Amino acid sequence: MKKSTAVILLIASPSESPDLVYSSGFWAPDPLVYLVTPKKRYLVVSRLEIGRARTLAATSKTFPPLEALTPDDLKVPKTGRGKLDQWALCLLRHIGLTRVSVPSDFPHGIAQRLEARGIRITTSREALFPKRQVKSPVEIACITESQQAAVDAMQAAVTMIGATTISRSGTLTYKGKTLRSEAVQRCIHHVLLDHNTVCGDVIVAGGAQGVDPHERGSGPLRAHEPIIIDIFPRHMHHGYWGDITRTVIRGKATPQQKRMYNAVKAAHRASLTRIAPAVKCSSVHKASVDEFERRGFETGLLDGTPAGFIHSTGHGVGLAIHEAPSVSLSETRLKKGNVITIEPGLYYPTTGGFRIEDTVVVTATGYRQLVSCEKRFEI
Amino acid sequence: MKKSTAVILLIASPSESPDLVYSSGFWAPDPLVYLVTPKKRYLVVSRLEIGRARTLAATSKTFPPLEALTPDDLKVPKTGRGKLDQWALCLLRHIGLTRVSVPSDFPHGIAQRLEARGIRITTSREALFPKRQVKSPVEIACITESQQAAVDAMQAAVTMIGATTISRSGTLTYKGKTLRSEAVQRCIHHVLLDHNTVCGDVIVAGGAQGVDPHERGSGPLRAHEPIIIDIFPRHMHHGYWGDITRTVIRGKATPQQKRMYNAVKAAHRASLTRIAPAVKCSSVHKASVDEFERRGFETGLLDGTPAGFIHSTGHGVGLAIHEAPSVSLSETRLKKGNVITIEPGLYYPTTGGFRIEDTVVVTATGYRQLVSCEKRFEI
Repeated sequence: MKKSTAVILLIASPSESPDLVYSSGFWAPDPLVYLVTPKKRYLVVSRLEIGRARTLAATSKTFPPLEALTPDDLKVPKTGRGKLDQWALCLLRHIGLTRVSVPSDFPHGIAQRLEARGIRITTSREALFPKRQVKSPVEIACITESQQAAVDAMQAAVTMIGATTISRSGTLTYKGKTLRSEAVQRCIHHVLLDHNTVCGDVIVAGGAQGVDPHERGSGPLRAHEPIIIDIFPRHMHHGYWGDITRTVIRGKATPQQKRMYNAVKAAHRASLTRIAPAVKCSSVHKASVDEFERRGFETGLLDGTPAGFIHSTGHGVGLAIHEAPSVSLSETRLKKGNVITIEPGLYYPTTGGFRIEDTVVVTATGYRQLVSCEKRFEI
Repeated sequence: MKKSTAVILLIASPSESPDLVYSSGFWAPDPLVYLVTPKKRYLVVSRLEIGRARTLAATSKTFPPLEALTPDDLKVPKTGRGKLDQWALCLLRHIGLTRVSVPSDFPHGIAQRLEARGIRITTSREALFPKRQVKSPVEIACITESQQAAVDAMQAAVTMIGATTISRSGTLTYKGKTLRSEAVQRCIHHVLLDHNTVCGDVIVAGGAQGVDPHERGSGPLRAHEPIIIDIFPRHMHHGYWGDITRTVIRGKATPQQKRMYNAVKAAHRASLTRIAPAVKCSSVHKASVDEFERRGFETGLLDGTPAGFIHSTGHGVGLAIHEAPSVSLSETRLKKGNVITIEPGLYYPTTGGFRIEDTVVVTATGYRQLVSCEKRFEI
């Protein structure tokens, strides 16, 4: 078999390119040029970043070795100082290369300018760093750290909601004030910070707000209505994410709310039980779909609005919050070391939203919860 | 003059495309398709997002009107459900358009697939939404909100460092423990959160660490050494940023440290004073450069490492932390309503880093600080 000699070119900001962080190990606020050849990796960064880039290059133990360069080192002409296509062009000429592979989301304008200067560009629809999907023990430890932060924040949020008093009209009062989604979100944020993690979009959505799975939630929370709490923090130092969701009701659930919650819990369990290496992602997804259908919960348009189980069962988690493998209709087979979420949910305008989510790692024989977290419904 | 009838296509995640957030007003965690025609704006989002997208479309007062669609509405074939190029293609066919302008960072893979299906794509090197550079009163209020968070966090950080005791060997003790960069960063993060803002990369860098302008800083802070504190929070609700930097010394500064600090302060003032509509950005930058030269501070390579005033004087701030106009060698002329930072700095390996930064708005006659914040050096 011919050995792959693909040369991969990335031009992106590390904060927006998990591939770049994964392969280079470098973090900086601004975009930069990164090239991987079979024998060497190259980082081209501005003067501002060269100190840290050189330190990384000198200490990196990853193969192939890393070299850090500035546009000055590459004799980029003065007119091209701030232009990343010029940095890349000078680097490619410096090494003597004219062909590169780029990811599908490579900047189109830069691709055009490089092609105009004789560089042949191949766009890859496949993952350029497929190994990213299979996590190393160090990576699993990083994700577990963020997941622990999420679990601690979840417990604080549930405790806060559980400590409210319920008025006759169903409002919730916490320490003398009406409890709002924003207050619970703030409580979550502070716990996350104490673990060096941040989550820009913490969801605390009660009642009708929970019907939209990406609605953050705002305003007063109410008793006897489902409250979806979804926390997905990123670690500020290593950049790996965690992800967890729980649904609680402060007060008393109706029989229909209980049926929905129990269906989600059963679907969650059914999908988890299906996880093992070589199992198709679609099979794990179908376990949830089947469970809902068996219990009579239909998915489809209700008065023009999607209702039922309206999203996929899960997604990979790593340096991106949503990454491969997708636990949906995808025919991809799970591998030992995949870290995925399992998060079935049910959403109906009349009853609100219910979702339960955990982040797990695929093991040799099944799966392992990264961090366990109790599931309480009525609190 | 021919009226512009450009059709602009954006395919991106709102969190990574300030243009998309600016023009659509929509926020979602996943990538989506957005098209601007002279008569109508179109958002194509997944079922998960359609609820909020329709609400926005119904309430948006921006011209042209906004329409929210799902891939189902556009009859995207089942095989193309998750593929944004298919969403865009079906949308363009639905409206009957074959030519679009895209930004330079448009995904190259998608551009190629659209071109293969007969769409003519023009890449723009210019800003597609140049109005973004001139902030409305509402936008200025949003940036001011984030800037106020940054200023409050700065004051908390300076108070914390000022409350330490200094040992004979120069270590700093806060409430019985050695003060580390991480503790000050955490203090800053908590204040930011109370203002609904987050900053992933708070910088608290002491001594030699401050020589690298993007080094976050870690480990014990020391007395009698400059400590750079740089805080740039983003508001979690509206997405606008703020940006501030101060440099402090806990204890006593040497005469050389004082000369450097005073030079930075003078450069900061010189650049601020130069700000007015129609003034070239390069002129504002040059005011700092000249001030440093006049005082004998040289910029260049020192033993192969960049030293002196090694970055530009400032940058625009808005829905992106670094946006146009760049206050550097650029010949762009300032406009009333630009919001920019002024942040000259000096960096020498032997003495550490010094930087002072404020975020200001260009007014009809000069500039206005968004939020004032005292400058204390020795604390």
